[in-house]
Amino acid sequence: MPVNVAVVGAAGAVGRKVVEILEERDFPVGRLLLMATARSAGSTIRFCGRDYTVQPVAPDLFEGVQVAFFAVPSRVSRELAPEAVKRGAVVIDKSNAFRSDPSVPLVVPEVNADALTGHQGIVSSPNCSTIQLVLVLKPLDDLATVKRVVVSTYQAVSGTGREAVEELFTQMEHALAGRPLHPEVYPHPIALNVLPHIDDFAPNGYSREEMKLVNETRRIMDRPDLAVSATTVRVPVEVGHSEAVWVETERRIPPAEARAALERAPGVVVEDDPGQGVYPLPVRAAGRDEVFVGRIREDISHERGLALWIVADNLRKGAATNAVQIAEALMERGLTG
Amino acid sequence: MPVNVAVVGAAGAVGRKVVEILEERDFPVGRLLLMATARSAGSTIRFCGRDYTVQPVAPDLFEGVQVAFFAVPSRVSRELAPEAVKRGAVVIDKSNAFRSDPSVPLVVPEVNADALTGHQGIVSSPNCSTIQLVLVLKPLDDLATVKRVVVSTYQAVSGTGREAVEELFTQMEHALAGRPLHPEVYPHPIALNVLPHIDDFAPNGYSREEMKLVNETRRIMDRPDLAVSATTVRVPVEVGHSEAVWVETERRIPPAEARAALERAPGVVVEDDPGQGVYPLPVRAAGRDEVFVGRIREDISHERGLALWIVADNLRKGAATNAVQIAEALMERGLTG
Repeated sequence: MPVNVAVVGAAGAVGRKVVEILEERDFPVGRLLLMATARSAGSTIRFCGRDYTVQPVAPDLFEGVQVAFFAVPSRVSRELAPEAVKRGAVVIDKSNAFRSDPSVPLVVPEVNADALTGHQGIVSSPNCSTIQLVLVLKPLDDLATVKRVVVSTYQAVSGTGREAVEELFTQMEHALAGRPLHPEVYPHPIALNVLPHIDDFAPNGYSREEMKLVNETRRIMDRPDLAVSATTVRVPVEVGHSEAVWVETERRIPPAEARAALERAPGVVVEDDPGQGVYPLPVRAAGRDEVFVGRIREDISHERGLALWIVADNLRKGAATNAVQIAEALMERGLTG
Repeated sequence: MPVNVAVVGAAGAVGRKVVEILEERDFPVGRLLLMATARSAGSTIRFCGRDYTVQPVAPDLFEGVQVAFFAVPSRVSRELAPEAVKRGAVVIDKSNAFRSDPSVPLVVPEVNADALTGHQGIVSSPNCSTIQLVLVLKPLDDLATVKRVVVSTYQAVSGTGREAVEELFTQMEHALAGRPLHPEVYPHPIALNVLPHIDDFAPNGYSREEMKLVNETRRIMDRPDLAVSATTVRVPVEVGHSEAVWVETERRIPPAEARAALERAPGVVVEDDPGQGVYPLPVRAAGRDEVFVGRIREDISHERGLALWIVADNLRKGAATNAVQIAEALMERGLTG
């Protein structure tokens, strides 16, 4: 039973990746509708051997659509998602627009697919850095109840969008030529630099990206009281977010037990033989759908702590793959329109 | 009263920086002797308008030397430092050779210059990532006793040496041209990547770089029981190590109080107005001797915690500047040979 699919923001980095992954996963696409804001409309995108023209967004186009993937800024999602829902589509939204709305499930299928039940037309896919974190936290929480999480991130520029990738490459060229770097997308150069600044800053001194990690992790894990702190940092990497993570649990989890639990966890791959140079790396996670975890060891500063290193492709599992998996989970449960 | 100075490893990245900083700081150099292992001997290095030839290392050359800076691998320090001491020099050693030897002071002058008293000829300068950390921890410890520290690092390739800087630039060129990257210095590509691997790995799963941060911090702070955990990561940055740090103290320190204490701390510069894009950055710390701290905020996951972001030039304060400051402190105290 094929479903009619729309991808809104189809010309962007994540939108294109959604189209690619729908094909890769043999998603049962009936009619495919690609949309973008006026600026990007008109381009063509290939899907299953056929070229599709990206159309300018218009509410009426959602007529007959059953699943609509939104990969657009929050402002556009807020405006258009209700229009799609009104016409019978289930919206899977990648933006921050609805992530803290208690009536909208925030879902990583391997962790909390049950939250899809009773959705009211919109499902949110979490922020990239949250997705890879909760995939690893969940099995540890099941083992011994996670009490506190401290995370610092090493985030790729593709998370910002295609213009940021271009900026990094242009700046790399200029740096090699000894020319000055002129930041446009970021407030400072990103080549040969790291920026402890992602999204705006909240009054408490945390960036909004850091607060997303805190609040979304609590929601997905269904642990409103979970203690989480984060420092999110942009690094000159094209694809693949990395995270250095410390986890405190109610009962001590020996590293071997954590490793065994993570080896069994869906969507997680353990790469953990550091002496042999085996640990997760952004360049190796790029193009993959799994979340990679390694450097699993005792937190020698806390008797019930673990330290880990988590890496995933921010455009795939961190964005497009998770959205498509949400659609698959909805269909399995008969929860599409 | 000028002193005769030797720089061993003068042709390396840190050795050259020591010579540069001796000149910058008007260090009272009498005779200057530059040495290196056979491979690098023969080159010339400019100091105060004169060219000095780098000579092959030989124990007898230390005759008449009062202060000898060692910027060589641990193995070479272990062999040659005692020869220099035997001939009356005070050795300031940048390697890991003596850092855990209780008879050798491990010194960051702003933090524990008193430890110089009673030295037995060798003084160790700590690892780069430790120096910038303790400069910030000390004023917080004085305020409210630090109980636990969690650190993740973003370390520049110049910390590995000049061949690593070349590898990064070569790989950036290849990446731009779409050619494969062939790692030689590092086990994996460093351009467009991050490596959670610095130095070898210890049996507990921590890298030796991580354990240096733990053990050296304890020694310098004179807090053998201090709880410290670290994840050290190499990033594609040329100069400037960054650290995301969480600090737990016995009494809660409000961020404003921490900021005020750090503004008064010697060698520390507070850069903390994130909404205006003001926070420490490796590209801005490069070429500076201070340690920069910002993103000072509550650790929202711990009632007596702070989160901070610390950056310093790893070749200057992280290495050469600290060594020269140790020499200055020795001279002020009349502790040179």
